[in-house]
Amino acid sequence: MTDELIHATYTALCKYGYADLTMQDIADESSKSKAALHYHYDTKQDLLLAFLAALYEDFTERLLIPEDDDPTARLVAFIDRALTPPERDDQRAFQTAILAIKAQVPYDDAFGERIAEFDAFVHDQCRAIVTEGIEQGVFRDVDPDRVATFLVTLFNGAHVRWVTEGQSADVTRELFVEYVRSQLLVDGEVTAE
Amino acid sequence: MTDELIHATYTALCKYGYADLTMQDIADESSKSKAALHYHYDTKQDLLLAFLAALYEDFTERLLIPEDDDPTARLVAFIDRALTPPERDDQRAFQTAILAIKAQVPYDDAFGERIAEFDAFVHDQCRAIVTEGIEQGVFRDVDPDRVATFLVTLFNGAHVRWVTEGQSADVTRELFVEYVRSQLLVDGEVTAE
Repeated sequence: MTDELIHATYTALCKYGYADLTMQDIADESSKSKAALHYHYDTKQDLLLAFLAALYEDFTERLLIPEDDDPTARLVAFIDRALTPPERDDQRAFQTAILAIKAQVPYDDAFGERIAEFDAFVHDQCRAIVTEGIEQGVFRDVDPDRVATFLVTLFNGAHVRWVTEGQSADVTRELFVEYVRSQLLVDGEVTAE
Repeated sequence: MTDELIHATYTALCKYGYADLTMQDIADESSKSKAALHYHYDTKQDLLLAFLAALYEDFTERLLIPEDDDPTARLVAFIDRALTPPERDDQRAFQTAILAIKAQVPYDDAFGERIAEFDAFVHDQCRAIVTEGIEQGVFRDVDPDRVATFLVTLFNGAHVRWVTEGQSADVTRELFVEYVRSQLLVDGEVTAE
């Protein structure tokens, strides 16, 4: 998918949301005609699947944390980046469209696979960092898989609250970091005040 | 809203989802005509708002935990009930419809108010139980408001994963309880294994 089409899809999703979006809306945001879009993508769903694939590339690139940092710093940096998407004015509109796509998953296996990829990436990254922390003796002897599941659930919750309350990610980020400190760090303590 | 109409709306939402739902679909699940429904509710949105209000009544009744239990047992019972809705075969379909409604919130203040009520109830209950636990010396001296925010975020995350992965609430419940033990209990320890 070209950068231009990615951008057009992004803008159209923000303007119209998932349910009301048409191929024409996407064409209108790009220099292409609707017919030209249909040449590559049979349906809106095909186009959105390609868009999600492009988004996934961007997401994983943005969230790859250098391995040389210590595990605590890496986990905090990971949480930070996962909760702070690229600065754009229309992020809430965009996150809303993604939430609407998540609500399509039970009806649509292809969407399901794409959405599961994001969660799996977050899960694997968290698990790897936690495992590293345990091996280094910085983290307690927790189950990395369970901690990863917990964090993926939290990220999903932060996503919803962002949509429904426009809640700033700041509070969520602080709460994540508190969790990491109190739950994982061998020398950590509860730092809620 | 009558029990019959609540049931009809529930069934129609499970069958058709939020976006495709029509007043006719709801009428078809009840003994009323579409015209009769329109007599009470101008639009599908009006009807769904009344439905959410009825749902809220049911939700708060189900989640009121007797005050005489000790705070740990109360918090665990609360988490348990919040994650275990009434047994019905079509719960995933229903939770999917609710998620689609959450994705409408930025476009619809009335939906936003209703959805916020659910989160506020969970928040207030959690905060009250945590406050009580601190006063009794069973919980650590954490900030009850922040813990409540954290738990509401987790509940929202559990909701999404239920929809997108059909993930059993069992794992999530265990993770919640682990969090409560390790994060809140004065005598608690990390019990992940």
